[in-house]
Amino acid sequence: MSVAEQGKRARAAATALATASRRVKDEALQAMADALVANADAIIAANAEDVERARASNTADHLIDRLRLDARRVDAMAEGLRQVAGLPDPVGEVVRGSVLPNGLELRQVRVPMGVIGIIYEARPNVTADAAGLCLKSGNAVLLRGSSSARTSNEAIVDALRSAVEGAGLPADAVQLVDATSRDSVKELMRARGLVDVLIPRGGADLIRSVVEDSTVPVIETGVGNCHVYVDAAADLQMALEILINAKTSRPSVCNAAESLLVHEAVAEEFLALALPALRSAGVTVHGDPKVVAIGGPDVVPATPEDFAAEYLSLDLSAAVVPDLDAAIEHIRQYGSGHTEAIVTGSQAAARRFVQEVDAAAVMVNASTRFTDGGEFGFGAEIGISTQKLHARGPMGLPELTSTKWVVVGDGHVR
Amino acid sequence: MSVAEQGKRARAAATALATASRRVKDEALQAMADALVANADAIIAANAEDVERARASNTADHLIDRLRLDARRVDAMAEGLRQVAGLPDPVGEVVRGSVLPNGLELRQVRVPMGVIGIIYEARPNVTADAAGLCLKSGNAVLLRGSSSARTSNEAIVDALRSAVEGAGLPADAVQLVDATSRDSVKELMRARGLVDVLIPRGGADLIRSVVEDSTVPVIETGVGNCHVYVDAAADLQMALEILINAKTSRPSVCNAAESLLVHEAVAEEFLALALPALRSAGVTVHGDPKVVAIGGPDVVPATPEDFAAEYLSLDLSAAVVPDLDAAIEHIRQYGSGHTEAIVTGSQAAARRFVQEVDAAAVMVNASTRFTDGGEFGFGAEIGISTQKLHARGPMGLPELTSTKWVVVGDGHVR
Repeated sequence: MSVAEQGKRARAAATALATASRRVKDEALQAMADALVANADAIIAANAEDVERARASNTADHLIDRLRLDARRVDAMAEGLRQVAGLPDPVGEVVRGSVLPNGLELRQVRVPMGVIGIIYEARPNVTADAAGLCLKSGNAVLLRGSSSARTSNEAIVDALRSAVEGAGLPADAVQLVDATSRDSVKELMRARGLVDVLIPRGGADLIRSVVEDSTVPVIETGVGNCHVYVDAAADLQMALEILINAKTSRPSVCNAAESLLVHEAVAEEFLALALPALRSAGVTVHGDPKVVAIGGPDVVPATPEDFAAEYLSLDLSAAVVPDLDAAIEHIRQYGSGHTEAIVTGSQAAARRFVQEVDAAAVMVNASTRFTDGGEFGFGAEIGISTQKLHARGPMGLPELTSTKWVVVGDGHVR
Repeated sequence: MSVAEQGKRARAAATALATASRRVKDEALQAMADALVANADAIIAANAEDVERARASNTADHLIDRLRLDARRVDAMAEGLRQVAGLPDPVGEVVRGSVLPNGLELRQVRVPMGVIGIIYEARPNVTADAAGLCLKSGNAVLLRGSSSARTSNEAIVDALRSAVEGAGLPADAVQLVDATSRDSVKELMRARGLVDVLIPRGGADLIRSVVEDSTVPVIETGVGNCHVYVDAAADLQMALEILINAKTSRPSVCNAAESLLVHEAVAEEFLALALPALRSAGVTVHGDPKVVAIGGPDVVPATPEDFAAEYLSLDLSAAVVPDLDAAIEHIRQYGSGHTEAIVTGSQAAARRFVQEVDAAAVMVNASTRFTDGGEFGFGAEIGISTQKLHARGPMGLPELTSTKWVVVGDGHVR
């Protein structure tokens, strides 16, 4: 089926979903969870085909691990859907409301977007997560997963669609777009009028290509060149713990730190603590000349590309800055607008950093790793927006909605 | 100067604007208003050149009228800026906030977008309005007006820039983009990284071209194919007043009604009232066969193009529908998602119409003409968004902002 035809079906399904009650949507989510568990054997068997294909094409072990499903991971997907069922329904929430001087009643109410397209890579659990979040927020979803996970995704979506239909909602609320065709991505990007918003989740290249070519509005997600700035007034032990956590607790994710900036007043003392600790944690430091001067042969000399890099690995760029202004300027030049952290005991420095650094999230004395829908209490997230339009930072259910103005009068004319 | 160079200057100015206090911004707005009044003679003289050029190229009288400035209109522009100074500052508003279970303090705070590009047609007062709204919301603005108003816009922007600079803010907060070059629009649309959002204001063709070609995020504005649906349970006298107001009070604007739908149970009675009243008001009705059957030779037979048309003139398409479902379906097919109105005494019909019609604004027993930032109490508007992402309906100051998460801890790690 063409993407356009799928888009038309999604639009029809969206009309039914938009007025579905929370009870019906939550029953569908529970049924979706049950269906995943009931079909776990079929899903795991389908996944084995994807894993086999990945092996045959010499895919790296850590990517195969991301791809692999077992009973525990299928249970986790089901549990994720049950958690979404437990979240409040964003649809119908009155965002603002008042009575105008002329007596008109004005309300701004949350409504679904309509049809959401999601383009994502590798991990098949995203299929269930995205389907659940979109359904709860009253949206139909077109899922364009990775071709490497296509057999798994087909089995998952088959189970989800039956459950949605069994709960009295249209099966076309959840559709999988052909992952074997490159054209299907292009068609999604051009499906203006059928798709209301497109969310690319994946590497920088995917996101750039969608942003460049899409006529459907896009929410850009996830590239994170996150900095930890250790201020002159920092508690250096606290700074060390935050740095190690931000860099090493999960280096492959977008909220991991990629760059360290240290105020020159504390550079020698802090680096004397930090460089050995980073080395013990397996981190390679790419330093500017001042860091090299302090750290010696353990520090690799950094290039400007290092300061712009989102390593997603156990690498860290590092520079000594003369003051807070230079730190802010460095972040302005190299940051990706995801998460930036300052460690300081100075109220004035924290205030300036928070005001002047332009990013989705700014941390004071906390690890960059906290920029996360779960940590923020959203219950679930569809991704982390690094753009300024519509949603910025972790996107939960409200970010998957639009609003509508409802105006009630009694024969009012202008 | 190239648009890229202007964008870089705007970005630098935006950094200063983002942390400017409300007092400084309001003083700048008052100075901008004073400068328009002080330079009224120069502005009116510059405008005379535009008017002369328009005359020489046989521009229609009503367009020349829109273009023309006199002392009263310059005063009105200045007054608009003073009103913006009186509005609350959206920047810094805490949208949400809480303390997480682990003690992290979480706040979502409004921040400026950064650099806003506005592409607009004809009327030079938009130049001052847009500059004022962007400055108040802490954004630098790149104004790409119509070439037909270029001399007026230059004089206005010269006055505004001096005033901004005199108030201690960077003059590059307000810049005019070359209106004589078609390339300047293209450069604006491709200035990703320099321009944060582009707002096209004007005809459907301009908006479509920007949406198609821009890699900068766009807020689509303004096309309005607005319907008035007269339900079986309508007070017909109320329906008549609303219809006449919606169609005739200002037919050239996007919130004017373009189409009438009447429930068949009241079609004869209502059209017997409405058709003569519309004729007296100078309105040409383009009716479906049932409307033609009732109205006779005064009704022009409608084509499907009529039902899709945004006339912006004293024309109205009209159809008789068998029930509320058919009215909703007709609006789904032909509506532009701007404003849709129902006239009814039935609570059930109103509730269904409000829930099922997908538009920026839905009116119950009120004229479509109320979809307006001024009427909604926003104090000013930059346009009316008909898209679902970021802003929907009239856009005031908060819609010109993004948000930033501020997270404050005490050495928190994950």
